Amino acid sequence: MSNTQVTLIQIDNYGPWTVTPAPRREVDLQTMQSRLFADLSQHFGMQGGYAFFTRFDNMVAITNGMDLEDHARIQESVRNRYPVTVSFGVGHDERPARALVEATAQLQDEGSAQDEQRTEVLRGQPIEDDERTDSDVQIAHYDVVDATGKYTDELDAFSTFIQIEQGYASLMRHLHDEHGSLAFFVGGDNIIALTSGMDDAAFEETVTYVREDADVELQVGVGHGATAHDAGMAAKHGLETCRERGTHIEGEFC
Amino acid sequence: MSNTQVTLIQIDNYGPWTVTPAPRREVDLQTMQSRLFADLSQHFGMQGGYAFFTRFDNMVAITNGMDLEDHARIQESVRNRYPVTVSFGVGHDERPARALVEATAQLQDEGSAQDEQRTEVLRGQPIEDDERTDSDVQIAHYDVVDATGKYTDELDAFSTFIQIEQGYASLMRHLHDEHGSLAFFVGGDNIIALTSGMDDAAFEETVTYVREDADVELQVGVGHGATAHDAGMAAKHGLETCRERGTHIEGEFC
Amino acid sequence: MSNTQVTLIQIDNYGPWTVTPAPRREVDLQTMQSRLFADLSQHFGMQGGYAFFTRFDNMVAITNGMDLEDHARIQESVRNRYPVTVSFGVGHDERPARALVEATAQLQDEGSAQDEQRTEVLRGQPIEDDERTDSDVQIAHYDVVDATGKYTDELDAFSTFIQIEQGYASLMRHLHDEHGSLAFFVGGDNIIALTSGMDDAAFEETVTYVREDADVELQVGVGHGATAHDAGMAAKHGLETCRERGTHIEGEFC
Amino acid sequence: MSNTQVTLIQIDNYGPWTVTPAPRREVDLQTMQSRLFADLSQHFGMQGGYAFFTRFDNMVAITNGMDLEDHARIQESVRNRYPVTVSFGVGHDERPARALVEATAQLQDEGSAQDEQRTEVLRGQPIEDDERTDSDVQIAHYDVVDATGKYTDELDAFSTFIQIEQGYASLMRHLHDEHGSLAFFVGGDNIIALTSGMDDAAFEETVTYVREDADVELQVGVGHGATAHDAGMAAKHGLETCRERGTHIEGEFC
Ligand SMILES: Nc1nc2c(ncn2[C@@H]2O[C@H](COP(=O)(O)OP(=O)(O)OP(=O)(O)O)[C@@H](O)[C@H]2O)c(=O)[nH]1
Ligand SMILES: Nc1nc2c(ncn2[C@@H]2O[C@H](COP(=O)(O)OP(=O)(O)OP(=O)(O)O)[C@@H](O)[C@H]2O)c(=O)[nH]1
Ligand SMILES: Nc1nc2c(ncn2[C@@H]2O[C@H](COP(=O)(O)OP(=O)(O)OP(=O)(O)O)[C@@H](O)[C@H]2O)c(=O)[nH]1
Ligand SMILES: Nc1nc2c(ncn2[C@@H]2O[C@H](COP(=O)(O)OP(=O)(O)OP(=O)(O)O)[C@@H](O)[C@H]2O)c(=O)[nH]1
Ligand SMILES: [Ca+2]
Ligand SMILES: [Ca+2]
Ligand SMILES: [Ca+2]
Ligand SMILES: [Ca+2]
Repeated sequence: MSNTQVTLIQIDNYGPWTVTPAPRREVDLQTMQSRLFADLSQHFGMQGGYAFFTRFDNMVAITNGMDLEDHARIQESVRNRYPVTVSFGVGHDERPARALVEATAQLQDEGSAQDEQRTEVLRGQPIEDDERTDSDVQIAHYDVVDATGKYTDELDAFSTFIQIEQGYASLMRHLHDEHGSLAFFVGGDNIIALTSGMDDAAFEETVTYVREDADVELQVGVGHGATAHDAGMAAKHGLETCRERGTHIEGEFC
Repeated sequence: MSNTQVTLIQIDNYGPWTVTPAPRREVDLQTMQSRLFADLSQHFGMQGGYAFFTRFDNMVAITNGMDLEDHARIQESVRNRYPVTVSFGVGHDERPARALVEATAQLQDEGSAQDEQRTEVLRGQPIEDDERTDSDVQIAHYDVVDATGKYTDELDAFSTFIQIEQGYASLMRHLHDEHGSLAFFVGGDNIIALTSGMDDAAFEETVTYVREDADVELQVGVGHGATAHDAGMAAKHGLETCRERGTHIEGEFC
Repeated sequence: MSNTQVTLIQIDNYGPWTVTPAPRREVDLQTMQSRLFADLSQHFGMQGGYAFFTRFDNMVAITNGMDLEDHARIQESVRNRYPVTVSFGVGHDERPARALVEATAQLQDEGSAQDEQRTEVLRGQPIEDDERTDSDVQIAHYDVVDATGKYTDELDAFSTFIQIEQGYASLMRHLHDEHGSLAFFVGGDNIIALTSGMDDAAFEETVTYVREDADVELQVGVGHGATAHDAGMAAKHGLETCRERGTHIEGEFC
Repeated sequence: MSNTQVTLIQIDNYGPWTVTPAPRREVDLQTMQSRLFADLSQHFGMQGGYAFFTRFDNMVAITNGMDLEDHARIQESVRNRYPVTVSFGVGHDERPARALVEATAQLQDEGSAQDEQRTEVLRGQPIEDDERTDSDVQIAHYDVVDATGKYTDELDAFSTFIQIEQGYASLMRHLHDEHGSLAFFVGGDNIIALTSGMDDAAFEETVTYVREDADVELQVGVGHGATAHDAGMAAKHGLETCRERGTHIEGEFC
């Protein structure tokens, strides 16, 4: 079984900020949000973590190997460079979904996401160093088979987008409800899922499910490691093996 | 009726690049993609346009008021600052969805999104200056009623995300299939839709549809203007009016 | 004679901010400052202007063709995305140095750079549209001859830097005091000067001066145009001609 | 005595790139360069280092505590996100200036800065972990006394700039030639110097020198530590003490 550490990232009191004193230009909000995410991706990435944009005002990161001090350093950097601040809740569990429940509770216990007073919360329990193992993180990197040939080059861009979106919606709900896993769209036709203890048959089942539910053909590479980066890179190599061999599921299961 | 000009933005030959010579670090791809989007948002925004991240490798912009030369300048700036290049297809039509069909065709006619030779395409027919009017763009800014109280502060972050995502999936498909409109998730609980000729009753119908289909309660501000920014800002003010009056639909219809 | 419009950009009350409530991390200040400059460079650049980093808390831009509304839009974008705000003073004159005196006075009249109350000043008199001509801006792009062979590949990096720096210090003072011109270091071995009414002999004199004063050999391309970009691009082509012909001064004088 | 580790950062073959196939827009070069620097500042900063923009095509970083693998990770991130690549040469020595001589030699041994074949060099000898001490880095943070009152609010912006620039030019040369130290302008009226074994009297001498040579009044905070960040933060607090006490030199000497 894995032991996933996740961090919930919340922009403090963001909703009111977007309309104070008057609604702010949408293009500036878009730029601010996506650059903040880009920076967080680098910050967490430099220490082996992964960050996902999710809703942009609420983002999720895999943070195995990072302690609260590492998190505090990132909060400081954001405060020094952005007009907004961020709160972090940290949780860990065998099941990724439960780890995020725990991380969310850490923030909710401190007040509302739209509470003016609640800023830069930093709470939760990172995994102790001596409890970490080389297979704490399991990552499944899903991708649509021949998205370019079947969709991008064939349909109009929005119809393609709807297809990809439906595949994602189907997979994210299924993985969450049936496998306690968290799946994130990462652009293109790619979905990165934070899974736990799933074997070959379990992944097979997910691919079949999405084919039947949303009519989208997926392939998936699976990896594990001590950090998101290690697990994720192994998963990417699994996906390359799928491409070479024309298979649907490749990787290391645990 | 409106006359929407949209631009399809495609990163050239991006799939192969992400795995050449070996799979690239995911955190770097995330950073690169989201910063590219952030820059495009500013570039188009400086001329009154809106850009949406969509799939990140394929983005959509509303570009009323911009000609091909304006587009070329942006391509040049991307080429000078990123490891990738972008192609632009431009289309316009009364119906936003048809405008994007046209924009997509401009790129597809030149070859595949994964054709090594096909770089920096710039094709399509912007609206002539003397055909532009003050109501060419209609924007509907949708938002979930009390997302913070009902979801963010109550559910765990992924369950909230699933709710928001389902609301978006429901709305995007309905607006596309029934109203020829394009809806984009812009973060938080916000969806910006590029619509056309919809009146109060039509918007009412969409809100009802999503309530019944996905059990998500939406409010919507509507605006129109010569550019995305003008229309979008009016829509945002409509949304503020909804909040003040406790209504669901506010704005200018045409 | 040219008619240069310059804008003085000042980060509001920046000194106190850097140490409130305690000294902020230097690396964050460096990142914030240089990204702010990068954004301003794009913002002004999109409208044909040039921005120079100068002291980073005080920057200078060439803004021919931009009115106060264009400036206000940039202020808004900065406010929406950074933890600081900026003030703009605009001036114009035949002599670039006098234009900057005027631009500076616009800000000083409103209070101190470290006055908490003085934020987002926007003052000054842009050139009227009907007074603009195709030769309002004259730009001289100076560059050290064979900097790579003589310095970068030969000396240690700091000794090279001292050489380049001395060349710049010599040129900036001479151009300012003798020609009413403003010279900015733009990285590498490059200096971009905002000049006015200088002919071939005048540029010859500056190159000779720096050779004798600082023992640095310069070449220079000169251009003019309605905007900084037009003039600057012509200057760059002049420099390329110097390289091809082995000459020291090339370009269009006026 | 300290033991400073410095890294010379060189953009590979940058000169030719700026004019291939034709001169690139200056505003794009400015944006690209300053964002690259901003990212490097964060990357090195996340591990306790400092990066200085210097000439932008050649930058210098203090990297005590970082090994070659840490450097390689940064090279990879740059390659994945920018149109250019960077080479790193690492050196260390009691004297900062000699450390940079060593770092420069590492790159020069591999070829010219404008050699097309010479890309992503990574060479040099970081300090062994067991040789590191808590006083390896000495940093002196210099700042002009009352720059706002004496210059910014009084003179025009360029005249102020000339004054600050002259103070910097005077100090950088003096510290280099007489003390084997490296001084970098970091914006505003601030200069950060990487010094070694200088005591109170030695700093006094530098302040007197600049007062007499360039007529600029400096104050300086001094700190030491295991990393640039530790030393630099102590130096900043020294500077705050100068401000409180009205003194010119404060800090820890070693
Ligand atoms: N985030 C992320 N996106 C990727 C990665 N690889 C590819 N993509 C995206 O996926 C899109 C499609 O590329 P591919 O999956 O290589 O192309 P395809 O046509 O589906 O072909 P196959 O997957 O080989 O069947 C690209 O445009 C990228 O946006 C990756 O490693 N990470
Ligand atoms: N892109 C974008 N996102 C916004 C905007 N306004 C709010 N948001 C996002 O929406 C989230 C929720 O904020 P609100 O919609 O103000 O909060 P709420 O709890 O739903 O309350 P009401 O909408 O007032 O019922 C914020 O965290 C932002 O992410 C906007 O103008 N643009
Ligand atoms: N800002 C800016 N910097 C440039 C430009 N061209 C070159 N540089 C910088 O100048 C440095 C040296 O490049 P060159 O001037 O081409 O090389 P050189 O060895 O001096 O050779 P010649 O100038 O051809 O004699 C590069 O590393 C860049 O930093 C430019 O157009 N703008
Ligand atoms: N890089 C950097 N720049 C700073 C820092 N503190 C101040 N500055 C810059 O220095 C400029 C002047 O600020 P101060 O030095 O506080 O102001 P002053 O008027 O000289 O007053 P005193 O230094 O207190 O005598 C600011 O605008 C900033 O650009 C810092 O910690 N780092
Ligand atoms: Ca695929
Ligand atoms: Ca809402
Ligand atoms: Ca040169
Ligand atoms: Ca000062």
